[in-house]
Amino acid sequence: MSALDAVLSQIDRDFDQSVERLFALLRIASISTDPAYKDQCRAAAEHVAADLDTIGFTTEVRPTAGHPVVVGKANGATGPRVLFYGHYDVQPVDPLDLWKTPPFEPRIETLPDGRRIIVARGACDDKGQAMTFIEACRAFHKVTGKLPVPITTMIEGEEECGSKNLFGFVRDNADEFKLDLALVCDTAMWDQRTPAVTTSLRGLVYEEVKVTCADRDLHSGVFGGAAQNPLRLLAKILGAMWDDEGRVTIPGFYDGVKDLPADIKADLAALDLTEDKFLGPIGLKHSSGEKGRLLIEQITTRPTAEINGLIGGYTGEGAKTVIPGEAKAKVSFRLVGEQDPHKIRDAFRAFVRARLPTDCKVEFGDFGAAPAIQLAYDNPALGKARTVLAEEWGNKAVTVGAGGSIPIVADFKNVLGMDSLLVGFALDDDRVHSPNEKFDVTSYHKGIRSWARILDALARG
Amino acid sequence: MSALDAVLSQIDRDFDQSVERLFALLRIASISTDPAYKDQCRAAAEHVAADLDTIGFTTEVRPTAGHPVVVGKANGATGPRVLFYGHYDVQPVDPLDLWKTPPFEPRIETLPDGRRIIVARGACDDKGQAMTFIEACRAFHKVTGKLPVPITTMIEGEEECGSKNLFGFVRDNADEFKLDLALVCDTAMWDQRTPAVTTSLRGLVYEEVKVTCADRDLHSGVFGGAAQNPLRLLAKILGAMWDDEGRVTIPGFYDGVKDLPADIKADLAALDLTEDKFLGPIGLKHSSGEKGRLLIEQITTRPTAEINGLIGGYTGEGAKTVIPGEAKAKVSFRLVGEQDPHKIRDAFRAFVRARLPTDCKVEFGDFGAAPAIQLAYDNPALGKARTVLAEEWGNKAVTVGAGGSIPIVADFKNVLGMDSLLVGFALDDDRVHSPNEKFDVTSYHKGIRSWARILDALARG
Repeated sequence: MSALDAVLSQIDRDFDQSVERLFALLRIASISTDPAYKDQCRAAAEHVAADLDTIGFTTEVRPTAGHPVVVGKANGATGPRVLFYGHYDVQPVDPLDLWKTPPFEPRIETLPDGRRIIVARGACDDKGQAMTFIEACRAFHKVTGKLPVPITTMIEGEEECGSKNLFGFVRDNADEFKLDLALVCDTAMWDQRTPAVTTSLRGLVYEEVKVTCADRDLHSGVFGGAAQNPLRLLAKILGAMWDDEGRVTIPGFYDGVKDLPADIKADLAALDLTEDKFLGPIGLKHSSGEKGRLLIEQITTRPTAEINGLIGGYTGEGAKTVIPGEAKAKVSFRLVGEQDPHKIRDAFRAFVRARLPTDCKVEFGDFGAAPAIQLAYDNPALGKARTVLAEEWGNKAVTVGAGGSIPIVADFKNVLGMDSLLVGFALDDDRVHSPNEKFDVTSYHKGIRSWARILDALARG
Repeated sequence: MSALDAVLSQIDRDFDQSVERLFALLRIASISTDPAYKDQCRAAAEHVAADLDTIGFTTEVRPTAGHPVVVGKANGATGPRVLFYGHYDVQPVDPLDLWKTPPFEPRIETLPDGRRIIVARGACDDKGQAMTFIEACRAFHKVTGKLPVPITTMIEGEEECGSKNLFGFVRDNADEFKLDLALVCDTAMWDQRTPAVTTSLRGLVYEEVKVTCADRDLHSGVFGGAAQNPLRLLAKILGAMWDDEGRVTIPGFYDGVKDLPADIKADLAALDLTEDKFLGPIGLKHSSGEKGRLLIEQITTRPTAEINGLIGGYTGEGAKTVIPGEAKAKVSFRLVGEQDPHKIRDAFRAFVRARLPTDCKVEFGDFGAAPAIQLAYDNPALGKARTVLAEEWGNKAVTVGAGGSIPIVADFKNVLGMDSLLVGFALDDDRVHSPNEKFDVTSYHKGIRSWARILDALARG
């Protein structure tokens, strides 16, 4: 029997206790955003630290200006040095009356379709997910007396309120956390049977644009026909950002955007994410995205432009024949691949300025410019993970892009120069952030086994 | 000496008393929009009625659901039956601290350029203007013992709060007021030396348009690239309402719009209203209107489209990566000539619908559809008025269009089938609706003489 087989057997044998240990963590109401739960957050951190101490880590509960970070270190093994990121804090629980049972009293429930689920706040996000990794480490430690690769943990307590102290913590301790690879367990499966590795996170450029024409609001009866109207300008300019094919028309916008490798694209096409499946639940039928692209590309691996807000003139009840002096819009871009956020921002501003009459003014506000994160499709760790996930789940592991950003992962790349392998076991129906949050027992069990396989594969080099 | 010369001499002789009589009316604080001034409004109506009774009218203070209407009738003369419209109510006076002297204590001031002005709330709008007509009648009555043509007065008390009860009053008493011609004294000169007749009032179609895409607000990280964005749709659709020449692109929009007669256009061109003169004071340099048209055409005799308001998505401080479920705009059109407001409204709605994806919804709100008013350039009364105004002022009288509508004039045309001759003596610097409102003494004096000439010309047939 290989070491891995022994570890997997140990995981199966010990699984009831794994559930009990998750329950113990779930009973701590570590709501990070509410100061009333400060002590509970600290208790959760100490609980995790004490646990890690029993399975081969030397652990510290490290202070920040907010809730502490649990840093555990298990050195001595060979192989790539990995940083495991997770979080012990959870979302608030209101509206409490929608919970079938108290959110911090975890329980097992069996669904009509036979699935068994763990119900509690944090069952999935992220206590359950983080524990899949910790339980895999526990099994290795039990069976082999050590961990398979050098591991540092970074289990934070402020993910649900913006990780605002973690960014500085990472920067201030960059030497300590600059390792070979980050492992993150806070993402989802493609579906119940299909494991997934999140290989890209779109970047974001967010701009505010204020156009001023006349130096006051005007009566359209007097000035209509001569005075420039900033709403007309914004409509014309922003409306021109897309062509009839759904492509963004800003010059240079697609610089650095590459087509997917054929095999990856084939995998994505096989997932068959239809407009009906994706848009039906929100009341829509047709994608507004780039024609000729898969829907899943449009939402994950293709860049976008959006008007997130627009206001100007009279917006109350009834009619007012005003030509406003100014109008304002929020415009953002989701970036992929090698798109340069600063070039995109400049190109957008030039696009607006080029279309603005010389007697009108524009002011821009910068609310962020972050590049996309892309794990190279030929990254060896990705290949290993996909192989062993397929062995565990009996289905090919897909690579998916996340449409939104995970800021700390961007910092791992940009500050620490370290790639992240994002593997998670959440499902669409986990009700993350909502009442009656759950985590499938199968996700938990096979998640633990998945991490054991991934750690083993990484150790084998 | 002709009767007219005798009347003009009487006007000159009596002018100091004309000023005194205007002052007496200006001392009544007839602010119509504020219920606290209800008695003052009634007092102003009774003051005017009592005055009309002394100069050949049989007068009634006629009740409405709001402030009363002063209806005076002087029959017996021959010639066209005219309806004189004016209003005795005034705007509120705040901010009071910006007035150099109390608003209801009229006084004469001499400006640095030598002009003498009457300063008080209502000095111009509309007590001073209305009194030009009444004083002309007084002089005729004094000199000839009668009025030159049959005259009915309609001096209302709610113009400054929307004339809301006058519309019903006119409809309910249509037979009584359906005369040959309306005379209105509530408009402006072209400049201090150039009299003007307002021959057109633009109509108005006002629409609200609400576009709904998804049935909720969405996160752009998750749905961006696939979910249709109602702000993008509104920007694209409304931005397409104008071509690069500043013309409205809605099919059929210009049906019923005629070019000006060559002589009228030449008169307008001679006024030399430049972009600098018209747009400079509001901080702009270039007209946004139709290329190849005079600026004065653009603002008075050409139709327009405006976005009066637009709102959707996140409009607060900072950034929110939302794709809103819905967005809303207010759109209006100024109409001229024979443009059919209902056809314009339908064409606009069709324009929007044709550009809307089939899975998105649009709702329209109708906030008005009124046609333009156009006095025929060959109307005999217009010709007479222009001739005698030129005699009085020593400068050709121009015909101008008002960019906005005067709803009651539309009703005179549409309900009573009666044209209106709009002659007024206001100047651009009269500070109408603002602190320190004024009326030039010359406007008042020559305004009285102008009406005497117009009435005489109408009587001569």
